[in-house]
Amino acid sequence: MKKTAVRSGRPAGQARQGQARPAQEKAPSPHPAEPSSGLITEDELLLASRNHAMPLEMLRWYATPAGMHYLVIHWDVPAVDPETWSLRLHGAVHRELQLRLGDLRAREARTLDVTMECAGNGRSLLKPRPVSQPWVLGGVSNAVWTGTPLSGLLAEAGLEPGAVELVFTGEDRGFQGGVEQAYARSLPVEVAASDDVLLAYEMNGQPLMPQHGFPLRLLVPGWYGMTSVKWLRSIEAVTTPFEGFQQSVAYRFQQDAEDSGTRVSRIRVRALMVPPGEADFATRRRVLAAGPTVLEGRAWSGHGAVTAVSVGIDGAWFRAHLEPAVDRYAWRRWTFPWVASEGTHELMCRAEDTAGNIQPLEQEWNYQGMGNNAVQRIEVTVRPSLADGTAFP
Amino acid sequence: MKKTAVRSGRPAGQARQGQARPAQEKAPSPHPAEPSSGLITEDELLLASRNHAMPLEMLRWYATPAGMHYLVIHWDVPAVDPETWSLRLHGAVHRELQLRLGDLRAREARTLDVTMECAGNGRSLLKPRPVSQPWVLGGVSNAVWTGTPLSGLLAEAGLEPGAVELVFTGEDRGFQGGVEQAYARSLPVEVAASDDVLLAYEMNGQPLMPQHGFPLRLLVPGWYGMTSVKWLRSIEAVTTPFEGFQQSVAYRFQQDAEDSGTRVSRIRVRALMVPPGEADFATRRRVLAAGPTVLEGRAWSGHGAVTAVSVGIDGAWFRAHLEPAVDRYAWRRWTFPWVASEGTHELMCRAEDTAGNIQPLEQEWNYQGMGNNAVQRIEVTVRPSLADGTAFP
Repeated sequence: MKKTAVRSGRPAGQARQGQARPAQEKAPSPHPAEPSSGLITEDELLLASRNHAMPLEMLRWYATPAGMHYLVIHWDVPAVDPETWSLRLHGAVHRELQLRLGDLRAREARTLDVTMECAGNGRSLLKPRPVSQPWVLGGVSNAVWTGTPLSGLLAEAGLEPGAVELVFTGEDRGFQGGVEQAYARSLPVEVAASDDVLLAYEMNGQPLMPQHGFPLRLLVPGWYGMTSVKWLRSIEAVTTPFEGFQQSVAYRFQQDAEDSGTRVSRIRVRALMVPPGEADFATRRRVLAAGPTVLEGRAWSGHGAVTAVSVGIDGAWFRAHLEPAVDRYAWRRWTFPWVASEGTHELMCRAEDTAGNIQPLEQEWNYQGMGNNAVQRIEVTVRPSLADGTAFP
Repeated sequence: MKKTAVRSGRPAGQARQGQARPAQEKAPSPHPAEPSSGLITEDELLLASRNHAMPLEMLRWYATPAGMHYLVIHWDVPAVDPETWSLRLHGAVHRELQLRLGDLRAREARTLDVTMECAGNGRSLLKPRPVSQPWVLGGVSNAVWTGTPLSGLLAEAGLEPGAVELVFTGEDRGFQGGVEQAYARSLPVEVAASDDVLLAYEMNGQPLMPQHGFPLRLLVPGWYGMTSVKWLRSIEAVTTPFEGFQQSVAYRFQQDAEDSGTRVSRIRVRALMVPPGEADFATRRRVLAAGPTVLEGRAWSGHGAVTAVSVGIDGAWFRAHLEPAVDRYAWRRWTFPWVASEGTHELMCRAEDTAGNIQPLEQEWNYQGMGNNAVQRIEVTVRPSLADGTAFP
């Protein structure tokens, strides 16, 4: 389902008349130039403080608890009044639809467990670091989502023969790369019509929280999170491919600023590990007691089922125990018993999927820092067990 | 209720035998040395990505929605099994108590709306910046908490005459400043016995989420957040003042590393504003349309009721409209109508309380970056209204 990249033809500075452009006065770009140091800028700190990461110990929970699911909020969380809100399905359709939240809740409901990951997860680990939301590794979570299949609405509206994509637009708006915009992304018709694409109004059995898109969001299982448009207000069937900012400028695999690149789509295979032992507050370095322990984590892929997870201990690889899948798009738990010996060790984990993908040991760099799935590396210091044999007094 | 500071006599390096010290090998300190640049270190980024801030547009909500309440997690979120968990009240008491969650829920219940703020909120705005959790301004939230008054348990246990403080210990543990520890803080007996101090098991009408202290946390209204110990497992009545790390080393107003300083306690008066207009993704700079708008925010103090909020527009001060208090310890909404003219403006807000406190225009620096309540400053760019008179198309 790979599509040829279409670069937006929008020239630099072509903002709408009368609209200020607070960002840099150069060509639209998803992010400003890279800094030369390994330090983080104050602007990146502002992003990191808004766009919540899931602390990796939360990998212990199958369904990420409310409030710990990772977040990307491009601008501000909009305060949507559900009494006046409605969703419009329009464009190249036979019958335009306008639906209230109650209408959507009255339709066929479907619940899916879905692991969602930000396309930029791991970005801050790249050298040099692309400047944008500076994810370490916490841009991933798993939740139980309930909504109505989009396919039913599409059938009711009836797509015209020339419709090639559906454009999903949210209530959130602001500036990015000098362009004022409402958040909008498109999907090819054949992807949008899959039974697994939901218009979701519940997360973990509760109405969506404001930050997760209340009252309604798109949910596209297996695709990176930018696809699942929040605060959804409009679905438009279009007869030519959508070239909005978030499609043609942001979320692309590019080699440099001039490269038109290719679109980011499905989630690459990945495993992550709960950092074992205890943390240091200021550095997050880990300390573990010598002796038997069980390493654990989760693994997922948007390209098919995870087939294996391996654990690396100081460079030697071992096969982990992979627990059965709970749901098709949900991460799988893995465990690996390890007898930790005194000293410093490097732990890694690495997943493979049915499509034959395996995580790279070193990440291939790209300009926007997208699709990073290099194996996680954790350094742990193993100390002697205490005299009484208690690992953690 | 100010107490004379008692500096811990613990010499450098006095960790327990057999325990590794992953942090710096100098005297116990709440944070490592300051960097010389205005950039953020990768260690600070790790902290910022774990310790979630409340995005300031969430000031629109009286009760901060689940998952948007700010978080400080010193080490890892512990996974507590409520079936085996119990709370122990012991030490200088006549009758030791051991209580299960059901026992606590069966006792007198009380609900309080409480604005909680991290003592380090605003830290990253100080020059030079103390290195620790690098808060911008999002370390504050308001929630509805339900629990049982601690005073009832204290009456049942019966404090011995020599008891001067109660020490509250959580299930969370790790290293800080080279010292391995479980998180522990104390309160003077007369503060702990107030009817407003709760052992809370619900937040916004739901069981505590894991990251907020499930199954039980202390809640001390009006005090900075470090006081309200999460994942509470033990309350000990002691006959000499507690000198644990979080009491005698961290959370102190110090001038430098050698200053023993004074304890941080109640929340200083403060107002914050919802940044008006639209944001730029990368810089968070704000753009607003010319014309009438309503500035809004919240104000609070741990030293008494808020009596007034003023709004500064380019250095001139105006009195804002302050809405009635909803609950004694909860923030109050304020509004201020403003006719925005084209150009760049600096907006400020400033609160006063019944104790006669008023926010400083410039923050007095301290070594740990505690109790920062300097007035917020927001630069906004006001653009012309669009031709059709619509402020935000």
